[in-house]
Amino acid sequence: MGGSTDQVHANGRSPAAPNSGDTKNLPLDTLINLDHGDPRMYESFWRKMGDECTFVIKGYESLSYFSNPKNPACWFLEPKLEDSIKALHGAVGNAVTDGYSIVVGTGSSQLLHAVLYAVTSPDQPNQTSVVAAAPYYSSYVEILNLVRSGLYKWDGDAHEFDKDEPYIELVTSPNNPSGVIRGPVVSRDGGILVHDLAYYWPQYTPITSSLEFDIMLFTASKCTGHAGSRIGWALVKDIEVAKKMTKFMEVSTIGVSKESQLRVAKILQVVADRCKRFGSPEGDNFFEFSKNLLTKRWEILRETVKKTQMFTLPKYPLQHCNYTGDVTQAHPAFAWIKYKDGMDDCEMLFKEHKILTRGGKKFGTDPGFVRVSMVSREEEFNLLIDRLSMIQGLNNVDGYAAEIE
Amino acid sequence: MGGSTDQVHANGRSPAAPNSGDTKNLPLDTLINLDHGDPRMYESFWRKMGDECTFVIKGYESLSYFSNPKNPACWFLEPKLEDSIKALHGAVGNAVTDGYSIVVGTGSSQLLHAVLYAVTSPDQPNQTSVVAAAPYYSSYVEILNLVRSGLYKWDGDAHEFDKDEPYIELVTSPNNPSGVIRGPVVSRDGGILVHDLAYYWPQYTPITSSLEFDIMLFTASKCTGHAGSRIGWALVKDIEVAKKMTKFMEVSTIGVSKESQLRVAKILQVVADRCKRFGSPEGDNFFEFSKNLLTKRWEILRETVKKTQMFTLPKYPLQHCNYTGDVTQAHPAFAWIKYKDGMDDCEMLFKEHKILTRGGKKFGTDPGFVRVSMVSREEEFNLLIDRLSMIQGLNNVDGYAAEIE
Repeated sequence: MGGSTDQVHANGRSPAAPNSGDTKNLPLDTLINLDHGDPRMYESFWRKMGDECTFVIKGYESLSYFSNPKNPACWFLEPKLEDSIKALHGAVGNAVTDGYSIVVGTGSSQLLHAVLYAVTSPDQPNQTSVVAAAPYYSSYVEILNLVRSGLYKWDGDAHEFDKDEPYIELVTSPNNPSGVIRGPVVSRDGGILVHDLAYYWPQYTPITSSLEFDIMLFTASKCTGHAGSRIGWALVKDIEVAKKMTKFMEVSTIGVSKESQLRVAKILQVVADRCKRFGSPEGDNFFEFSKNLLTKRWEILRETVKKTQMFTLPKYPLQHCNYTGDVTQAHPAFAWIKYKDGMDDCEMLFKEHKILTRGGKKFGTDPGFVRVSMVSREEEFNLLIDRLSMIQGLNNVDGYAAEIE
Repeated sequence: MGGSTDQVHANGRSPAAPNSGDTKNLPLDTLINLDHGDPRMYESFWRKMGDECTFVIKGYESLSYFSNPKNPACWFLEPKLEDSIKALHGAVGNAVTDGYSIVVGTGSSQLLHAVLYAVTSPDQPNQTSVVAAAPYYSSYVEILNLVRSGLYKWDGDAHEFDKDEPYIELVTSPNNPSGVIRGPVVSRDGGILVHDLAYYWPQYTPITSSLEFDIMLFTASKCTGHAGSRIGWALVKDIEVAKKMTKFMEVSTIGVSKESQLRVAKILQVVADRCKRFGSPEGDNFFEFSKNLLTKRWEILRETVKKTQMFTLPKYPLQHCNYTGDVTQAHPAFAWIKYKDGMDDCEMLFKEHKILTRGGKKFGTDPGFVRVSMVSREEEFNLLIDRLSMIQGLNNVDGYAAEIE
């Protein structure tokens, strides 16, 4: 499935932008950083939850390296985190955990490094090719090239992979940057698929089935917004692969922060316990809150983009979400914005309007695209909308360049 | 400086072993794991400190990836941790921090990976050789070989390095496993030195000067015993090296757990604030407490080893410690035990007495050595002493093997 684009028109700022007064906290000329997907949108929810989510640890607790020496797959996984992960996937219905080993990582980035180590071997004759369909998550390239591993090598866009040899395909679904649901592209014998499901949560996309791929990666950063905790987890069907991933983590960092594991365990359990009640007066269903907020932001963004007459946004299909029971479309964590008439450097255009984004080239595609975070704080989102509204009536780059000089 | 050995004799268990009743909590046939240096010895101190060291974090705090975007060396270092690290080194006088950049890591293991990345380049013609003087920390080999990097390669014992090319020497001081203070062995032009100072704290060794090497690695695991937190830090003289280390951490794990950083910041500050008062009735000087405990353990161990007539222990010089003001010897976190008359597998001998240790071969040396943790819980230390006492009157492996069968 590819990311179709939706051409929409108009200009001026949306009068519907909520809480636009929030921008008063930021100087008008502040450069807003929407390059990273820093998930500060979720702070208001967690603030509302009060002490129920407060994590306390005494000075003498969790001194040991070990969390659960009896766990054959991962000796540093806290049992409470394991329980919460299973409870949450069970409640949301987005992934099967029965029959899977769970490996915890310092974010899902470390887990991807661990997977690459686990499914390759120093005895193989050549480095294993690793591919992902463009536009692909820009960090994959950096992860693959980091220390020039002899086990694996980045081989670019999966659409262009035509070697008759073992390979690894990274399948990001929903895709970062484009937000679309994806399957593998190469689909040949001897291929190993790694499913990066960081965004397969109800606030971003309809949950259409409980997935059961061989290797599935998730992260608290995108699920609940606790990016600072650096907690990711892998659901792994083959326990031998899980054990090798654990070995990687042992040599790389001797396990994963216990404080983060225990805090995220608490947070995930709070989410799981409350996520089956919809429309409750307490407003304590995290996914309902987040989905409503992202839906509003996307409405405002689409209206603004339409008015500019300059950009397009991907169009997402309406689908039945098993979790909410509604027919809905995706509201991704990133907007994948394309300059309508082609452009050499859309990232620069945004930067000149004081919006830091990540340009298409880094995702292996056209520099006329930019990826813009949709999960920033309200003030930053409002500034994005303000500034996007001001990029109007410009029909070409020259015209734009003339104006800003 | 090398690890001289001290031959001592006798047999039977030390009657001076304190709290030997503690062993009642462990079944008599429990296999005790003294392979890792799991620092659970420190739990009793932190328990005594009560709520002063309790760490509390609310559900909405520290969601962002960023800790300090204005820090040019390390954007994910929590300012509070930076302050505590400086305060602690200042109070102890073991390392200079003025003029250094601080980089935080998920344990010092990750920092070593980061250093290797930072001081090499993909443009260099060959992999840089990395060496350490035997006996060297066993994990170095695993770290160097993990993903078969094209940037660097493990080249074994520094004493045998004779290539006329750039190299990296890992200088572990005090050394793991042998506990001795060390300097570089190769000392040629074009060499980069990485000082692993995990054990350069007053409970383990006299603090004889405030070190100011180019790259110095430390870890909370060995300093305060908070191994589960996975917090290490590097003091780096060249900010460009620090920046490259930060880049490594960004691609490897997108930073380091904020919960761990903030908790360890609190713990280090508590240690720093109280570590200049000696003999206070509160007994709240962490290094004083720890040094006293290790000193007692070493006395008991030396007496027990002497009685067995079978093993030797390294002898450490008496030195003036600038921190305590006393003349004292080292009391390392590991005992580096040598079978007197040579042996093929001392690790196996200990294992048959239900003591898990790490054998000499893994440290690049004679299998007649074993490394045994001295920082275990009291019960385990007592069981070690009990069992060591029982390995007596055996003058050769055959005799031993006959007895245990």
